[in-house]
Amino acid sequence: MPSLRKDPITQRWVIIATERAKRPRDYSVPRTTTSSGFCPFCHGNESATPPEISARRTPHASDSPWTVRVIPNKYPALRVEGAIEKVGHGVYDEMSGIGAHEVIIESPDHDLHLSELSIEQITAVLLTWQDRMIDLRKDDRLKCAVVFKNHGEHAGATLEHVHSQLIALPIVPKRLAESLEGAKNYYDFKSRCVFCDIRDQEISEGSRVVFENQEVVAFCPYAARFPFELWILPRRHEPWYENVAQAEVTRVAEALKVCIDKLNRALDFPPFNLLLRSAPFVNADHPHYHWHIEIIPTLTRVAGFEWGTGFYINPTPPEDAARHLRDID
Amino acid sequence: MPSLRKDPITQRWVIIATERAKRPRDYSVPRTTTSSGFCPFCHGNESATPPEISARRTPHASDSPWTVRVIPNKYPALRVEGAIEKVGHGVYDEMSGIGAHEVIIESPDHDLHLSELSIEQITAVLLTWQDRMIDLRKDDRLKCAVVFKNHGEHAGATLEHVHSQLIALPIVPKRLAESLEGAKNYYDFKSRCVFCDIRDQEISEGSRVVFENQEVVAFCPYAARFPFELWILPRRHEPWYENVAQAEVTRVAEALKVCIDKLNRALDFPPFNLLLRSAPFVNADHPHYHWHIEIIPTLTRVAGFEWGTGFYINPTPPEDAARHLRDID
Repeated sequence: MPSLRKDPITQRWVIIATERAKRPRDYSVPRTTTSSGFCPFCHGNESATPPEISARRTPHASDSPWTVRVIPNKYPALRVEGAIEKVGHGVYDEMSGIGAHEVIIESPDHDLHLSELSIEQITAVLLTWQDRMIDLRKDDRLKCAVVFKNHGEHAGATLEHVHSQLIALPIVPKRLAESLEGAKNYYDFKSRCVFCDIRDQEISEGSRVVFENQEVVAFCPYAARFPFELWILPRRHEPWYENVAQAEVTRVAEALKVCIDKLNRALDFPPFNLLLRSAPFVNADHPHYHWHIEIIPTLTRVAGFEWGTGFYINPTPPEDAARHLRDID
Repeated sequence: MPSLRKDPITQRWVIIATERAKRPRDYSVPRTTTSSGFCPFCHGNESATPPEISARRTPHASDSPWTVRVIPNKYPALRVEGAIEKVGHGVYDEMSGIGAHEVIIESPDHDLHLSELSIEQITAVLLTWQDRMIDLRKDDRLKCAVVFKNHGEHAGATLEHVHSQLIALPIVPKRLAESLEGAKNYYDFKSRCVFCDIRDQEISEGSRVVFENQEVVAFCPYAARFPFELWILPRRHEPWYENVAQAEVTRVAEALKVCIDKLNRALDFPPFNLLLRSAPFVNADHPHYHWHIEIIPTLTRVAGFEWGTGFYINPTPPEDAARHLRDID
């Protein structure tokens, strides 16, 4: 059973993998990917994965039995089974590593990049994220879900077949709690949503905007931590991604396709991380939050200074990055 | 002039480099290192660096004019010159990028690894860190200094010659503020220093301890974010590293040499980041803080989940890591 441990200074939780623990020599060998070999995510290889959690199917397509498929992660960071037990060890705190760790296979086709999927297919992926969150929030032990995507080996992907992951947690992670608190503090001070104010200012200034449609604005944030960092922010205020209607999701899919395509062309298909940010499951209200997507191309190495301080040095001003991305027709 | 920008949600400051801004093609080319060419940090090449800030010299060594040399970073993230100006842009905040960014060349010899330096030489490096902090804290504009070391290209180093860096900042970075606050909260609750309690528990449990001498204990922290993460924690409570006496610094140097040597032998000379954590300069008391050194080998790739949540998955329990490191002679 993996264990959740809390840092007694910062109160930050960490997942410690106690099964399959890596020994020193596991870190010395180069990572192997299945780029030229067998891929368990491909259509036809379904039996090589753990049993399917759910799948989306196109009724009239005879050659593809599924369009999006959800499976448990074969090497889960957390386990679904069991009760949450909390134990103290002197100054330290531990919790059983309960949670869900799922993989969303975004296409049956191995060779497609996210930006090559149709808007309909990306919409199906985004709706699958919603389905899983709606299902998992029924579990009282879970406080929130984090959907993320690691594309490319340098961004942490171990399989190249297009996929995303979902981790549902028994706690609200520190960085999300920090954003929730920041949004609440702003609301208490201004009586407005900070994300709505950002949306308005970005649209009115325009210098950091990369793409707009009727539902979202995509821009390089003013205090971007990373070069070419991109946010897709919905125009409509809504804390919970699960609550977004399909028509809006379709426009998010369009923006996502356009943004990834622009990054691919500007930066020669960079590795990237994508993160869906949404308010926690817990019924306590988080009306001040505003769901959105963050995309971070993996262009720079994060070094000691950033680790230690949470203080980032970004060598490309977001205005420059946005201009480069806008210029790609 | 670089600019400091604040994220309006999390209040996190970011340095945006506005000079020498990187364009998309700058990220496409592979990084070049000077591993087989000219090294500006080598003895004899002093004229290739910006003017020296300070240097330590061994009076009786005729063949080496300096043992440790401090120079300004040639591509500084912050500038020393100018006043701190704070400007609002709608919802956003900006501050002029004032600060110091220095490089500490830790040996005149290009080919030595940190663990190959003598304890005397490492002591000279550690005392140089103190000297610079004592000098910089006289500057009222600066609130704290962060000393760090990136070893190896994968840990963000651009030059292989043994060196560390110091960045002095006009603000207290978020992660340090968080640690300070955590230490204060613990003190308010327990009337004890959380680091002193950690020290006592680690020594008494022993399972995570890697090395001890009369002044410090080195251990893999209970809630380690990274495999083989190591802390060097002084036995004596002291918030400010600048205040540590030379006799104690010598024992820190010994522990550092032993720890890096163990990591090198366990993990085949891994890239690593080292971070000195010390209370801020500001006169406001931080009596609850306890300076220490954190060492993080760069073994895993940090992916979307960690970025987004601040919630780390560590595949090697610290007890296992410590046992492997202890077992090295």
